[in-house]
Amino acid sequence: MITRKEQQTARQQAADMIRQAGIHITDKEADGIEIVDFGLGRLEKEGVQVLTLVQTERISIKVLVLFPNQTEPEHWHPPVGSDPGKEETVRVITGTMYFYVPGENTFKEGFLVKGKEHCYTMRHELVMRPGDQITLAPGVKHWFQARDEGVVLYSFSTVARDAMDQFSDKGIVRVTKVTN
Amino acid sequence: MITRKEQQTARQQAADMIRQAGIHITDKEADGIEIVDFGLGRLEKEGVQVLTLVQTERISIKVLVLFPNQTEPEHWHPPVGSDPGKEETVRVITGTMYFYVPGENTFKEGFLVKGKEHCYTMRHELVMRPGDQITLAPGVKHWFQARDEGVVLYSFSTVARDAMDQFSDKGIVRVTKVTN
Repeated sequence: MITRKEQQTARQQAADMIRQAGIHITDKEADGIEIVDFGLGRLEKEGVQVLTLVQTERISIKVLVLFPNQTEPEHWHPPVGSDPGKEETVRVITGTMYFYVPGENTFKEGFLVKGKEHCYTMRHELVMRPGDQITLAPGVKHWFQARDEGVVLYSFSTVARDAMDQFSDKGIVRVTKVTN
Repeated sequence: MITRKEQQTARQQAADMIRQAGIHITDKEADGIEIVDFGLGRLEKEGVQVLTLVQTERISIKVLVLFPNQTEPEHWHPPVGSDPGKEETVRVITGTMYFYVPGENTFKEGFLVKGKEHCYTMRHELVMRPGDQITLAPGVKHWFQARDEGVVLYSFSTVARDAMDQFSDKGIVRVTKVTN
């Protein structure tokens, strides 16, 4: 749960970072940036800001923003009905992203969210910089993190059904509640 | 048909325009920019430059470049097997794009390629600037054009099968031949 004021402040900060990354967005798009606290109520530690550019029944194009030292919790995209699940390519626009996927434990540059170590089980680390990208098949667990400077990245995917995403942290609620 | 030298020059120019648009691309990506003359042999008038960022069995993400006064010929994306056809969203990154779709004749700012007027039948004009986008259902005829400054744009789509695209100009061959 976040307050309306927290939402507005985060939205402005995310819009500024996107524009500083050289991406032209309209004011209407900026006003629609989704602030996601995953129901954990501590956005600055675990959360993500999402600008959806395209959402059809077939594809989804988003710009994601991580503030400095913010972590997007570990999750995966399950099958939904006849859809085998979301296939996603992430590509860094600005900043350095610490990205974790299945594989050998090479954990080194990132950090585990304190007290939540058991919710971050993927420890194969990719240090991704502007122009770097990775494509994830449906069902592949992943989480990612920004350090001091924050990150702006693209998510290019098949149709997104965010509310169906599954999380290692069972306390997570994907839909953010906003209070006055 | 274009020469190897024309291809290399166009590739360099396209890479420069993409980078000037603030998009980080790798040298490998720059070297892979596709120069498409549609088999017409006059790239500067009718053609497009294509950088494919993502191509899977489900989605396709491209950066397209039109050089100043270059026109991408009128075409559409037909059904292919069980696929209802490519659904495409184009979004302008830099420059002004003159984009033509079905609808009332509002043709005003663009120009018809001389002697090819019959191959450009869509005359409903959209003048699109950075941050403007449009989503096209499969099968919708469209063509687009740059004026003095050129255009860099994204194409976000379901899986692209470019070789299956259909064109109003029956003289077009989608696969470019390159000679020494």
